[in-house]
Parts: sequence; structure tokens; C-alpha cells
Amino acid sequence: MRAAIYGGPFDISVGERPDPVIQRPTDAVVRVTLSCVCGSDLWYYRGESPHDLGPIGHEFIGIVTATGANVTTVTEGDLVIAPFTFCDDTCANCAAGWPSNCLHGGSFGNHGVDGGQGQAVHVPFADATLVPVPGTGHSDATMTSLLALSDVMCTGNHAAVSAGVKKGDTVAVVGDGAVGLCAVIAAKRLGAERIISLSRNPARQALAREFGATDLVPERGEEVTAKVMDMTGGIGVDAALECVGTGQSMTTAFSIARVGSVVGAIGAPHDVIVPIDTVIFRNIGLRGGVSPVRRYIPELLPDVLSGAINPGRVFDYVTDLDHVIDAYNAMNERRAIKSLLQISPA
Amino acid sequence: MRAAIYGGPFDISVGERPDPVIQRPTDAVVRVTLSCVCGSDLWYYRGESPHDLGPIGHEFIGIVTATGANVTTVTEGDLVIAPFTFCDDTCANCAAGWPSNCLHGGSFGNHGVDGGQGQAVHVPFADATLVPVPGTGHSDATMTSLLALSDVMCTGNHAAVSAGVKKGDTVAVVGDGAVGLCAVIAAKRLGAERIISLSRNPARQALAREFGATDLVPERGEEVTAKVMDMTGGIGVDAALECVGTGQSMTTAFSIARVGSVVGAIGAPHDVIVPIDTVIFRNIGLRGGVSPVRRYIPELLPDVLSGAINPGRVFDYVTDLDHVIDAYNAMNERRAIKSLLQISPA
Repeated sequence: MRAAIYGGPFDISVGERPDPVIQRPTDAVVRVTLSCVCGSDLWYYRGESPHDLGPIGHEFIGIVTATGANVTTVTEGDLVIAPFTFCDDTCANCAAGWPSNCLHGGSFGNHGVDGGQGQAVHVPFADATLVPVPGTGHSDATMTSLLALSDVMCTGNHAAVSAGVKKGDTVAVVGDGAVGLCAVIAAKRLGAERIISLSRNPARQALAREFGATDLVPERGEEVTAKVMDMTGGIGVDAALECVGTGQSMTTAFSIARVGSVVGAIGAPHDVIVPIDTVIFRNIGLRGGVSPVRRYIPELLPDVLSGAINPGRVFDYVTDLDHVIDAYNAMNERRAIKSLLQISPA
Repeated sequence: MRAAIYGGPFDISVGERPDPVIQRPTDAVVRVTLSCVCGSDLWYYRGESPHDLGPIGHEFIGIVTATGANVTTVTEGDLVIAPFTFCDDTCANCAAGWPSNCLHGGSFGNHGVDGGQGQAVHVPFADATLVPVPGTGHSDATMTSLLALSDVMCTGNHAAVSAGVKKGDTVAVVGDGAVGLCAVIAAKRLGAERIISLSRNPARQALAREFGATDLVPERGEEVTAKVMDMTGGIGVDAALECVGTGQSMTTAFSIARVGSVVGAIGAPHDVIVPIDTVIFRNIGLRGGVSPVRRYIPELLPDVLSGAINPGRVFDYVTDLDHVIDAYNAMNERRAIKSLLQISPA
């Protein structure tokens, strides 16, 4: 099969990989229909984070083409969503609700595991990992929103859930990338009344508005803090969602969070220093991390199928596997919010 | 009146201060019966943290001797517990349950505000701040446990509540100081089944056992981590309570916390670096801070009065106001877990 191959910083090509096959009775093979590029892919693309050379991409949906003898919940021909990590659903971490920290799991598209940016994927623990999508004849818009459930929407949701967003809250979202925009959707879905998006990019501002942002703050750094504190009567927001992963974004999130609140953070951290004095002297907590996507997909899937939420709207650049490098460059140069890869017909 | 006066590092004397008087109709004056020294007092005693010169001590119980015209919940002659901060119960932070972050509040024993380590204290917002103790003729043991509610017991409780300790949990308490020992009480009270106290001091180990610790781990540093992970099947504890405030104790707490858990931290931070990679990649949160003591006292008071909990057992050194320097030295030299000051008869 053909798949995107990471050869080092700024070096992504399309090459040949072995066709995935059933190795254990709990495996499945999925033909990828849609995949995409994650903001976190850019870290290794730019050489700012390590990544094994080889297959890449951890977000995909597709059609099951083969299953092992013990697989019972998905079958050949099923449309399935893959969380960006596979999991066994039986280890202590899975049992506690943390499938992305499965003791026997792993990530797609790293350490030699098939990536989503390729024609097919070998999926371990198929019953525990894959979520079949009910119904047929889904629109293209629905399909891209289903793809968003493999990571970006569930990751935005994790920021909001971790921060304890509840009905009536005032929420600030730090970061207007695809995850930050999905965090706006999640905050609204959880009942937030006022959603402040920290964005200065017109296209992203428009999407934030569409997703439910009530206020836009284009300022940066200390000006953001002054503005948001002013907007909240000097108290701060009920929940600050940190959707970037830099030191500045973490500092900003803590500076606008109200006493007793929790910063919900999902950005892969780069040079982040948690302001411990703020944690302790203002009783502001920090929760979040690698989203337990497999736990969230079943909760969010009905809302995607009903059209109540449309996270697929974050995709504003579309290409195919042959042009995967363009998909990376469009995001790296901030010409695109998020790049969709049409791998094969559904 | 006479009161302990901070004159700089290792310089604490007993001097004269103006007798407190009613200044506003919401004030009360309290004659201090019992006070004590806090672990956090040692930071400025040693010159490791700044502190205004003047009155000190933020933990006390006593008898109301005067009230302003608008005070309704306490009256002359009442035995009262003072939280270590005063609060108005009406600001946005108080309304949200964070009285120790009251927008119009402050701490006893700093910035010229009367301290608990003195004969009397001027108490602002008396209705909001003071908690009257029902009944009369309380034993000396009960009295010291009531004093413990002014800070140390409620602070230990905040570590456990912040970490979300629940029935059946395995909890580790990092720190065997008075707060750590009270965190053992709190964890047991919240239903923890297994409580691992990280202590190597025989007297503190004995008290930890008495308070409900089921296991003692005398190891330090990386050996602690290996031991606790081994004790928990490689998974880690359901809740790690950080009751010291140093970099090492925070590192230890995160290293033994299980995926998806929350480190409950209450130590005033000194050179603490939060391991953000552990937060994000193991989904381990951080919550805690300056305990909302005024919120916890009413919950814990019945258990003190019934004898269900006996946090006053942490006091193992007793002296009077004239010997306040000895009280500090006993703790600073780790001869005492916590020093009690008998200021005046009840």
C-alpha cells in the first residue's frame, strides 16, 4: 500500500508500506477513507519534537476490510472511527476511563505502527479501539465531522471537561487552532453562556463565532489579561482552556482564570512553566492531557450525526495522499486551520 | 496587650501592642486562649520568605470580649474558632466558596493585622469569619482539636478534597508534618481504604498510624517511587497529597500518582517545578492551595466535638506566650511536630 513517510524535518514523502494483515484474532484492518494533519504533527515536521522515521498520521476514519476471529463489534464493510490511540479496554487505566493511557496501547503513526496518512491501517484490539458509525449515506460534511472525532473534537472536549465547564459558565479559549475552535464547540455543548475566543485571525474568528464564541479578544500577552479581567468584572473566567501548549499560552490561561477554577490544558507542552504560586495562592487547578478519545466518541457521535455540532468545519484545506506535503505546508504556514486528506472513496 | 513580635530572621520577642478595639460595626475582639506555630511560620522565621515586621501567628481560638453593633452570630463570652484568614462572605470569591481568597479579606498575623500569637485579636467581618463552638466544658483534648480547625486540619482536608479522595481509594500522603498528618485524618474521613504515609520519623509514624495510615514508607526520593509503585501493582495511587511544598515533594507526588488522578497540594511552594509532561502525558491534574478554612470548619466541627477525629494530637510541645521563641525553635529543630501556645485560660 501507499502511505506518507516521515524522513526527517520538512521531509515527508509518499512511499510503499506492507499491506496490513490480521496478525492476532483481536485485530482488524481498515481501509482509510479520510485522514488529516494534526497541529501536533507540525512539531516533528519542523524538527521541534522527536518522531520515529516511518509512517505518520494518527487521525482517520475508514472501512473495515478484515477482522480477526475474536472481533465481534465491527465487521467487514463497517464505517469506523479510530481514536488516535489503540487500547485494550481491560487494563487498569482503561478500566478507570483513560484509554489513551492504555498499558498495552499505542499511537497510530509512530514507532512503526501504521499511520492514518496512508491507504490502510492495522488496528490492534479492534473491539476496544474502533467505533462503528451507524447509518449509511452520510454527507461529506458529516464524514469530515466524523473524522474530527478521531482527535481534534475529542481533544477540545477534553479541555472543556477537564476544566469542569458547566451550564452558565464564562469560558475563555486560549488558542484558535483547530483544537481551540473545537473547544469552543465543547464549551457551548456543555452549557457555557459566554465563550471568549482569544483570536486575531479573521477566518478563525469567523469560525469561532459560528461555533458559539460570544466574544473575540484579538489582543496578546498582558493586554489579553487586562481585557479579559475587565470583561469579567475583575474576577476572571470560570474556566480557561489552554489549547496551544506554549509557555505564553499557559501563563495567559492562568492569568485570566478566576480563583477556585481549573485550567483545562491539552496542548503538547513546549517550554511550559506552570505558575505554581498562582496554583497555590489563587487555588487555580490544572487538569487535562492526552484526550481519552475512545471514551468521548460515543458521547459526541450522536451530536455529529444529528448535525448539532459540526467540528468538520475546521477543515479548510483539502488534498489527497499524493499531496500530503502540501497539507503539512498549508498548516505550517498558517494558510490552513486544518488539512483534510481524501485517501479513498467511502 | 502582649503579643509575639517578628523582628527578622530568628528574632521573635514578646512585646506590647495596642489593645484591639471595635473599629467598625462588623468587628469583634477575641481574647486568645490557645494559639500555635504553623509550619509556614518557619519559612520567615528562617528568613526564607518575606514577612512584615510586627505581629505574627494566624491560628487561634478564644473568647469573644466585644462585638460591633451589626454583629449577630457571635456574642460576648462565646468560644470561637478563627480561620487563619478573615473574609466578608459577600464578595465573588467568597460566594464561590473561596473565603481564603476573599477580595476584602486578609491574613491574621501579617501586614500589621493582629496575630494569633498574642493576647487578643481584632477580627474584621466577625459574622463571616468566626465560627462559634456549641456546648461548654470541653476537654483540653477537644480544645486543642478545635484549635487545629483554624488551619492545620482544614489544610490537610483541602489536600484530600482537592485530590478528590473517595471511598475505597488508595491514598499516599507526601509529608509527615502536622498538615500531612491531618491529611491522613482527612483521607480516612473521606473513606480511603489504604493510606500510605511517607514518613521515616518514629513519632510521626506512630501518629500517622493512630490517624489511620495503613502503610508507612520510610524511603526517600526515587526509592519512594519504586516502593509505592510496587505496592500498587505498578499503577500508582488514586490520590497523592503533597503536604510539603518543595520541588522534591511535588516530584514525588506526581511520580506515584496514577493516570487520571489529581495531586492535591497545599504546601506553600518553594522551588517547585510542576512536571508538565506528567500532567499532559499521564493526565494527572494538580489542585489545591490556600485552604478555604472557613468553608471546612462547619463540616469538620461535629467530628471534633464527637471525638471522631482528634487533630489536636499533632501538638506535642506546649508552652506559653513568654516562651514563644522556644515554640518556634522546637519546630525548627524538628524536636516538635507542632507547638501549642497556652495564652490564657478558657
